Amino acid sequence: MTRAPGTVGRGFDRGEFEARLARAQAAMTADELDALVVTTAPNVRYFTGFNTQFWESPTRPWFIVVPREGAVIAVIPEIGQPGMAETWVEDIRTWPAPRPDDDGVSLLQATLLSLPRRFGRIGWEMGRESVVRMPLKDFDELRDRVGNLAFADGSPTLWSLRRVKSPAEVARLRHVCQIASTAFEALPQKLRIGDSEIEVRRKMQIELAEQGADSAPFVAVVSGKGGYSQCIVGPSERRLDDGDVLFIDTGATYDGYFCDFDRNFAFGHISDAAKRAHEAVWGATEAGIAAARPGATTTDLWRAMADVLEVAGSKGLNVGRMGHGLGMQLTEPPSNMPGDDTALAPGMVMTIEPGMEYAPGCMLLHEENVVITEDGAELLTRRAPREMPVITA
Amino acid sequence: MTRAPGTVGRGFDRGEFEARLARAQAAMTADELDALVVTTAPNVRYFTGFNTQFWESPTRPWFIVVPREGAVIAVIPEIGQPGMAETWVEDIRTWPAPRPDDDGVSLLQATLLSLPRRFGRIGWEMGRESVVRMPLKDFDELRDRVGNLAFADGSPTLWSLRRVKSPAEVARLRHVCQIASTAFEALPQKLRIGDSEIEVRRKMQIELAEQGADSAPFVAVVSGKGGYSQCIVGPSERRLDDGDVLFIDTGATYDGYFCDFDRNFAFGHISDAAKRAHEAVWGATEAGIAAARPGATTTDLWRAMADVLEVAGSKGLNVGRMGHGLGMQLTEPPSNMPGDDTALAPGMVMTIEPGMEYAPGCMLLHEENVVITEDGAELLTRRAPREMPVITA
Repeated sequence: MTRAPGTVGRGFDRGEFEARLARAQAAMTADELDALVVTTAPNVRYFTGFNTQFWESPTRPWFIVVPREGAVIAVIPEIGQPGMAETWVEDIRTWPAPRPDDDGVSLLQATLLSLPRRFGRIGWEMGRESVVRMPLKDFDELRDRVGNLAFADGSPTLWSLRRVKSPAEVARLRHVCQIASTAFEALPQKLRIGDSEIEVRRKMQIELAEQGADSAPFVAVVSGKGGYSQCIVGPSERRLDDGDVLFIDTGATYDGYFCDFDRNFAFGHISDAAKRAHEAVWGATEAGIAAARPGATTTDLWRAMADVLEVAGSKGLNVGRMGHGLGMQLTEPPSNMPGDDTALAPGMVMTIEPGMEYAPGCMLLHEENVVITEDGAELLTRRAPREMPVITA
Repeated sequence: MTRAPGTVGRGFDRGEFEARLARAQAAMTADELDALVVTTAPNVRYFTGFNTQFWESPTRPWFIVVPREGAVIAVIPEIGQPGMAETWVEDIRTWPAPRPDDDGVSLLQATLLSLPRRFGRIGWEMGRESVVRMPLKDFDELRDRVGNLAFADGSPTLWSLRRVKSPAEVARLRHVCQIASTAFEALPQKLRIGDSEIEVRRKMQIELAEQGADSAPFVAVVSGKGGYSQCIVGPSERRLDDGDVLFIDTGATYDGYFCDFDRNFAFGHISDAAKRAHEAVWGATEAGIAAARPGATTTDLWRAMADVLEVAGSKGLNVGRMGHGLGMQLTEPPSNMPGDDTALAPGMVMTIEPGMEYAPGCMLLHEENVVITEDGAELLTRRAPREMPVITA
């Protein structure tokens, strides 16, 4: 239970938040917003450092107002006041929540109407891969009540800020990728033929906790003869048997930052076709890593992987893309896929995630996490072995 | 790693879903809705049984359409098709997601416009303790596109269905409460003076996994001299010392159902004032359990606890209520608080959660989970000891 050597600290210094605010305010001027209002766990944490698991309770809405000029304002339930007071935020406005008749709406209304107005537009989490975490009835009412102050989509602004990670953020992402790499490497000697997928998940959860992960919100476990038909529903009571491929995809966190990568394990003797398919997705990952350089786009990255898989006889993929951004969420924009066309830049952290159906209803996936540097992609995970680890016991 | 005796199975039989649909359709007629559209993990699972951790990725929206007549319709990303096909849902409509230009909007539009129309109203998760999980821009566009088909607040209808649990649901809730009770009882012998709060969380997470919990999305750990100033931010690197009270609140799951209860632990010698405060919240819990009977209201339940705490010298509570509904979410309506006035009925599962600040910035909380039966409250948790367990090593 002692800290592993090389463990990075928790929380950010004040300079990190000042830099985030300065970038946000410059972006708001460019995007003609008088403020951003954020309501969801990652964005609240991004601007305040307020770190809680309490988002699991949907009862109370939370609002952070980031004005184009001046300091961050927290408009939050009373229960959060002592915790928010420990952050760098000084302007904390509370109401006694829950109060179903007026859960922060009038307090937020007054706050928004008191802001300096230049563009008459407030940005909210209204667009891609975003959600406004408050009752929509209340949002509609607030939208009516603020008169000619328009509510606009602030998500392009927000994603432009969060897309490029600071060195302190990359340190956390690298740390959690290393924790999960260690857990994956330790796992084969703990797995047995006859284990159920649910037992496998339990072993992985315990290994992740022991290695220093704070939480493991996503540990998908799926298996099947030589591959699997899907990758998001599982574990089940299914027991591993000779010829099975076991797939584990893991989103663990450290200090609020996620890893997201998977590994495959062979049970007993798997088919030659499965071995060839694994070689193909392993090779496609190599191609993806090589293509992940500043100036290349997410579509280039997708193309590099797709070319390898097509040669290998891919019959398609129901996942819709081959990787995405990674940070305070398991998945973030952009997507490695046709039409995305986002230019890669240093500081972006991406998953490289090729996969293919190589027989009807039977697919294999592969995944690594990288940070884009001036010189290309730097692996944050420890590269998966070229051959699947084999469980024979 | 073998199954504990008394473990309940996973998944529900078809009859459970048929009963849910029948109740929903009767409620829709009463509430004048032609359909409900649900977009969030618990409501999607409630109507379909589709169980995935993939909600952790915000990239793709999911839509389940529950019409007032006929079968449930899934309008979902392609990645979910194989998993949804394993549920009782037969009408599955997919699009190749992510597709930022049209992520399900036109497919959902066509589905809604094809439904039999009697009231011209579709219910969404727009109200209390609810959120519409899709980009608000897309929701606004869809709302425009469906013409005179009105989008209404379906959350009162949804909560009326989910508020009363079936016997199969209560079995899962009891099971996860027993798992966490066992973990809490095993914990004191694993705790040491000098442990950090983060180490305590790790020990609790591992204990929960070993006892059979599927996940532990909420394990809040807070400590302080004789009590704590707040209950939602933590764990930190703070190390436990003589005189501290350690508070652990836990939301673990089994088969998609939550427990939500806390325990307090004394480190070394704690003050007499802290012991008296603990006796008060323990006694208030007794009063709450006794008051939790069919016909009583959530406000009666709050009053019974508040009376005990006032006599004991409570200086207030920043939590805003003393318990709430429990089920597929860590917290669900109703709330034990003034003005809530929900009548308790058999099958409702509630947390009994009194707390008080007994000195400035120093509070103690207590919590148990119960199911309301014809005869009163039945404990799902194993009752906390009257005196805090003491860690002396």
